[in-house]
Amino acid sequence: MGTVLSETEFPSVVATFPCHVQWGDCDPAGIIFYPTYFRWMDAACWAMFAAAGYDAKRMRAEHLAMPLLSADCRFLYPAEQGDHCEVRSRILNFGGKSFVVGHEVMRADGMALAKGSETRVWGKFESGPGSRMRGLAIPEDLKARFRA
Amino acid sequence: MGTVLSETEFPSVVATFPCHVQWGDCDPAGIIFYPTYFRWMDAACWAMFAAAGYDAKRMRAEHLAMPLLSADCRFLYPAEQGDHCEVRSRILNFGGKSFVVGHEVMRADGMALAKGSETRVWGKFESGPGSRMRGLAIPEDLKARFRA
Amino acid sequence: MGTVLSETEFPSVVATFPCHVQWGDCDPAGIIFYPTYFRWMDAACWAMFAAAGYDAKRMRAEHLAMPLLSADCRFLYPAEQGDHCEVRSRILNFGGKSFVVGHEVMRADGMALAKGSETRVWGKFESGPGSRMRGLAIPEDLKARFRA
Amino acid sequence: MGTVLSETEFPSVVATFPCHVQWGDCDPAGIIFYPTYFRWMDAACWAMFAAAGYDAKRMRAEHLAMPLLSADCRFLYPAEQGDHCEVRSRILNFGGKSFVVGHEVMRADGMALAKGSETRVWGKFESGPGSRMRGLAIPEDLKARFRA
Repeated sequence: MGTVLSETEFPSVVATFPCHVQWGDCDPAGIIFYPTYFRWMDAACWAMFAAAGYDAKRMRAEHLAMPLLSADCRFLYPAEQGDHCEVRSRILNFGGKSFVVGHEVMRADGMALAKGSETRVWGKFESGPGSRMRGLAIPEDLKARFRA
Repeated sequence: MGTVLSETEFPSVVATFPCHVQWGDCDPAGIIFYPTYFRWMDAACWAMFAAAGYDAKRMRAEHLAMPLLSADCRFLYPAEQGDHCEVRSRILNFGGKSFVVGHEVMRADGMALAKGSETRVWGKFESGPGSRMRGLAIPEDLKARFRA
Repeated sequence: MGTVLSETEFPSVVATFPCHVQWGDCDPAGIIFYPTYFRWMDAACWAMFAAAGYDAKRMRAEHLAMPLLSADCRFLYPAEQGDHCEVRSRILNFGGKSFVVGHEVMRADGMALAKGSETRVWGKFESGPGSRMRGLAIPEDLKARFRA
Repeated sequence: MGTVLSETEFPSVVATFPCHVQWGDCDPAGIIFYPTYFRWMDAACWAMFAAAGYDAKRMRAEHLAMPLLSADCRFLYPAEQGDHCEVRSRILNFGGKSFVVGHEVMRADGMALAKGSETRVWGKFESGPGSRMRGLAIPEDLKARFRA
């Protein structure tokens, strides 16, 4: 219980990922097509890891990956083409081999558009992208990089 | 409490939506990029409504819409390019103006790949797509169409 | 002939649209999935029009649209996740009701990644998005906004 | 010249790839967002190769790839959500290490929606997906599999 509490209270940095609603991100109702939010959350997670020293090139070179266990999002207010937004991401929880990232999508004027999370495994490909992958214990050094 | 129970027990038809993992649906890890599952769940929901008499043309003509309140998915096993799948969708719950659709993504050999849900509002555009939208009480006739 | 020559020599402003290759933009070969370039070209065209005074809100309010007649792209060098790029867009040609936009996708280090074009109609919806659309003679004022 | 002529006359099989316009494939104008056609053309090309004996699993196992040199499409008539279509694909031309695939997108009622082509290299990854790739001379056996 205490462990769970402390995990959910991980004192995370907050990374920001800018995004911009495009014509092709919207549907015939004239608002954002909801899988776009998940595309953004995925990109925001990669950006947060890049900022912490794990950019795409390093992830690739070290055969690291972070596949999803689950994802969810609540849609609070509809975004429209032209809206400038940012995704604010933080680590909610580090488990043994998995972690939870929380994402808030804010419009430039401060309106909250969506709020979601991703649960991911920290993993390594046996022999490069495309090969079998297994979960790794998340190194303490990695966790430290996300501490506020 | 009883209401909640009976709602979660809505005796829904099960609609099936065939899908096929494409090269462009996959990421550099060689497995499905997870927002693809939400694209499929959205398409599966539209297909289920089409099968119940509310196809895209009717929805458009009657200015109906079904925007999302939330969506979630658990990823159980990674799909690869070439996998033939189907989404099995059912109504989990009809509320006043909202409803919950449950989706299971199954590979052709019976392997469960993902399991998720969408919570949607039943709504109407004031004057055609792109105009303001408001929630409608879900008609009993509509609910009846999804009863198994 | 002379007309064609002078049209192809339209002295266009050059608009730049920043873009960033995401994990989900790439395929199992580890390089950009090519329809991504067309998504970028579409977004870059909208950005160029926004910079010229026709942003998404105005286009919507005035029922304007710019549907495609054709699009093409040559892929010069493969982009990878993490590459920072920009699309440089210019008007190649204004016809009566149609126009051609040329796009070059450059990586931040100056490497040319792709080069393409879109041919579009300048059109108006009869009664808002989703209704029938017809082509309009491109106003001289609009053309003037793109003159370098 | 004669070479070009005979190449353009490659007596190709015609492969068909069924597709269905989804809500999320359409834009705020209520019609298909054009990069969708390129997604379909890519998937149709993979399906044509699968039908010829080179399915995704074999391509992966043998480290084969077919990256793009260029792509183009003319958009003849706007597709709408719910339209059932098929892509009809054929080899237009086999060169030394490259080939051209022609694609026609037809609506179920016979209306031609789009017509495009892809020029691809026949290539092999040095050591699995993600590694360096080089073009291969297209084997005669491969060409024979596409002969009508």
